Amino acid sequence: MNLPASSNLAPSELAYVPFVSVANIMRLVHHVGIERFLRDLAGHIEADFKRWPEFDKTPRVASHVPGGVIELMPTADDTLYGFKYVNGHPKNTRTGHQTVTAFGVLSEVSTGYPVLLTEMTVLTALRTAATSALVAKYLAPTGAEIMAMIGNGAQCEFQAMAFRALCGINRLRLYDIDPTATAKAKRNLEAQGFEITTCSSAQDAVISAEVITTCTADKQYATILTDNMVGRGLHINAIGGDCPGKTELHPDILRRAGIFVEYPEQTRIEGEIQQLPEDHPVTELWQVMRGETEGRRDAAQLTLFDSVGFAIEDFSALRYVRNLIQGTNFAENLDMLADPDDPRDLFGMFERAAR
Amino acid sequence: MNLPASSNLAPSELAYVPFVSVANIMRLVHHVGIERFLRDLAGHIEADFKRWPEFDKTPRVASHVPGGVIELMPTADDTLYGFKYVNGHPKNTRTGHQTVTAFGVLSEVSTGYPVLLTEMTVLTALRTAATSALVAKYLAPTGAEIMAMIGNGAQCEFQAMAFRALCGINRLRLYDIDPTATAKAKRNLEAQGFEITTCSSAQDAVISAEVITTCTADKQYATILTDNMVGRGLHINAIGGDCPGKTELHPDILRRAGIFVEYPEQTRIEGEIQQLPEDHPVTELWQVMRGETEGRRDAAQLTLFDSVGFAIEDFSALRYVRNLIQGTNFAENLDMLADPDDPRDLFGMFERAAR
Repeated sequence: MNLPASSNLAPSELAYVPFVSVANIMRLVHHVGIERFLRDLAGHIEADFKRWPEFDKTPRVASHVPGGVIELMPTADDTLYGFKYVNGHPKNTRTGHQTVTAFGVLSEVSTGYPVLLTEMTVLTALRTAATSALVAKYLAPTGAEIMAMIGNGAQCEFQAMAFRALCGINRLRLYDIDPTATAKAKRNLEAQGFEITTCSSAQDAVISAEVITTCTADKQYATILTDNMVGRGLHINAIGGDCPGKTELHPDILRRAGIFVEYPEQTRIEGEIQQLPEDHPVTELWQVMRGETEGRRDAAQLTLFDSVGFAIEDFSALRYVRNLIQGTNFAENLDMLADPDDPRDLFGMFERAAR
Repeated sequence: MNLPASSNLAPSELAYVPFVSVANIMRLVHHVGIERFLRDLAGHIEADFKRWPEFDKTPRVASHVPGGVIELMPTADDTLYGFKYVNGHPKNTRTGHQTVTAFGVLSEVSTGYPVLLTEMTVLTALRTAATSALVAKYLAPTGAEIMAMIGNGAQCEFQAMAFRALCGINRLRLYDIDPTATAKAKRNLEAQGFEITTCSSAQDAVISAEVITTCTADKQYATILTDNMVGRGLHINAIGGDCPGKTELHPDILRRAGIFVEYPEQTRIEGEIQQLPEDHPVTELWQVMRGETEGRRDAAQLTLFDSVGFAIEDFSALRYVRNLIQGTNFAENLDMLADPDDPRDLFGMFERAAR
C-alpha cells in the first residue's frame, strides 16, 4: 500500500504492477491449451516480425560472469517498451538450478510505467519454440514429417509441441549424450501422443529426418553435427549456439547452407555464424515473412535457422500475455511503484507512511 | 507455487525471489531511521567506489522514447550482479504520474538467479541524495552551513536530509519556478527541523550559500545558473542535468570549475559536460575517495559534482537493502523462478501443474 495523502487509504491504481507468477503462467497456458497458446504466440511473433522496422533494436546487453552470462534484452515500439532478464549458466543443473531463468517487464512508452511483470522461464521456452516452428513453417521442406532432436534438455518438449502445433510434425528421433535426458523427454512426449524413436548417437538420430533441431547446453565450440551427417534438402533448427564461444555445428555445414537469422548484428556475435567471416551472407527472417526476400530456394537447399533469440520475440510474448490476462485472475497486483497523490511530494508520502 | 514433481507440494526455496514493496521500503527506512539509513547507504556507496576497478561497468542502456527515456543500468562484481530499470518522463506530473519510477534486481553471479527484487523509486531518491552528500563531504568548502536548493521537486527533501546527515548542513535557501513546489518542500523540511528561507529567484537563493544544489526536471538546455551568479569557493551539486539535451548550468561555469564525475564515459553523454569538448579534463570520484587524486584544490576553487547517477550506486543500495532484510518481514516471497525438481524437466513441471 502506498499510503496516499488523502483520507482514502486505498492506494492509487498507478502504484500497482500486475505480476504473473510461475504458477499462474502454467495455469494460463493450460487454460488456453498449450498448442493453441503456441500458435497464437507464433501469430504475435509473426505480426511483430512483419513490422520489424517499427522497433527500436539493439543487441542484448550481456554480462559475461564466471560460469555463465546474464543478459538484458530491451526493445520498444511507439507505444510499448519491453525487456527480459535472462541468465544462462550451463553448470547450474549440477546444483539443482535451471540453466536458464528469466523474467520480463512491459511498460507504457508514454509514461515509462511498467504495466506487466511476469516470470519468463516457462515463457521463454514457449516463445523460443514458437519462433522455431514459425520459422520452419517458412523454411522446412514441404511435407516434413520427421524431426531429429539432438539435446533433450529443458527446451526439447516445448520445441516438439510447437513443431506439431504449427508444422504438423508428430514423429521424433531423440538423442542426448545423457540417456536419462532422452528417457525424460520420451516419457513426456509419448504422454502427448508423439511417435518417439530413441537413438544411440547423433548420426543415428538424423537418419530419415527432414528437420533437425539441435538444442544442447555446453558452453564450448561443440560439433553436434558434422558436414557428412547432413544431407541435402533438410532444415536445421539450431537453438543451442547462442553466445560467444558456444556453437553446435561444424562450419562446413554453415558454408553450404542458406542461413536465416533474426537480427544479424546480434547473431554474428552469438550464433553459429560467429565461426564465419563477418560478411558471410545471411537472410533476415522478417524480410522473408514480409515476402520481400526468398525463403527456401528449392527442395534441395539445406536451410539453417541460426537461432539466438531476439528481444522482439520476448516483446511479442509479453504483449500476448498482457492481452490474455485482462480481466482475469491470472495476475496479482504488486505494490512496485511509488505513487504519491502529488507526484512531487514523494517525501511527504514517505513521512506519512511512518504514522 | 511451482508444483514440483515430488508428493511434497511445497515449492522449492529456489523458486522464490524476495520482493520489497514500496510500503515495505518506507517501513524499512523508518525502522532504521532515515538519517542513519542515508549514512549507512553512503557508507556502502563509498566502499563500492573505493573498489571501482572490480566492477563490470558499461554506460546505461537508454531507450529515448516520445516524452522521455527508459533506462537499464547493469553492473556486477565477482559475486553479485545488479540492475535498475528507471524511467524519466518530465511531463508525467501533468497526469498525476511520477517523473521517475524505478525498480531493481540483485542476482548471484554464480547461478544467475535473482535474490532480490525491490521498488527503487524511493530508493533512487535516497541513493542519489546519499551520493550527493558523500561527494560533498569530499568537495564542499570546510564548515559549509548554508545550501541553496534550486528545484524543489520530488528529490529536494531527500537531498536536504542527506546533506544534514552527512555534512551537518541545516540551513536551506529554496527556490522553484513553481511556488507550490517550494511551499511543499518548506512544509516537509520545517517538520524535520530545518531552517528554511524561501527565495524569489535563483539569484536570490544562491546569496550566502556555500553549496548549491540544482535539481530541476525540464528536458532542455536550461540555464538555472549563469556564471555571474556563482562566486568562488563554492560547491555545486548538479543533479538535474542527466540525459542528452537536459542541462542546467551555463557552460561558462563549467569552464572555470573543477569538475568531478562518476563515470566519464556516461557523464560525457548525459551530464552538464555534454556542453564541453570531449577532452575537457574531469576527475573521477572513485580516485578522489581512494586518495589517488586531489579533491578540492583550495578554498577558492569552484567545485562541481556533475551528477548523472551510475549503476554502482544502485548496486550499493541493492546490496545494503538485501543485508537489511535478512531475517526480517520487510520482504515477501515471489514465485518468480520456475524451479522443477529435475532442472531439465521444465515440461514435466508444466504438465503436472495441470492436475
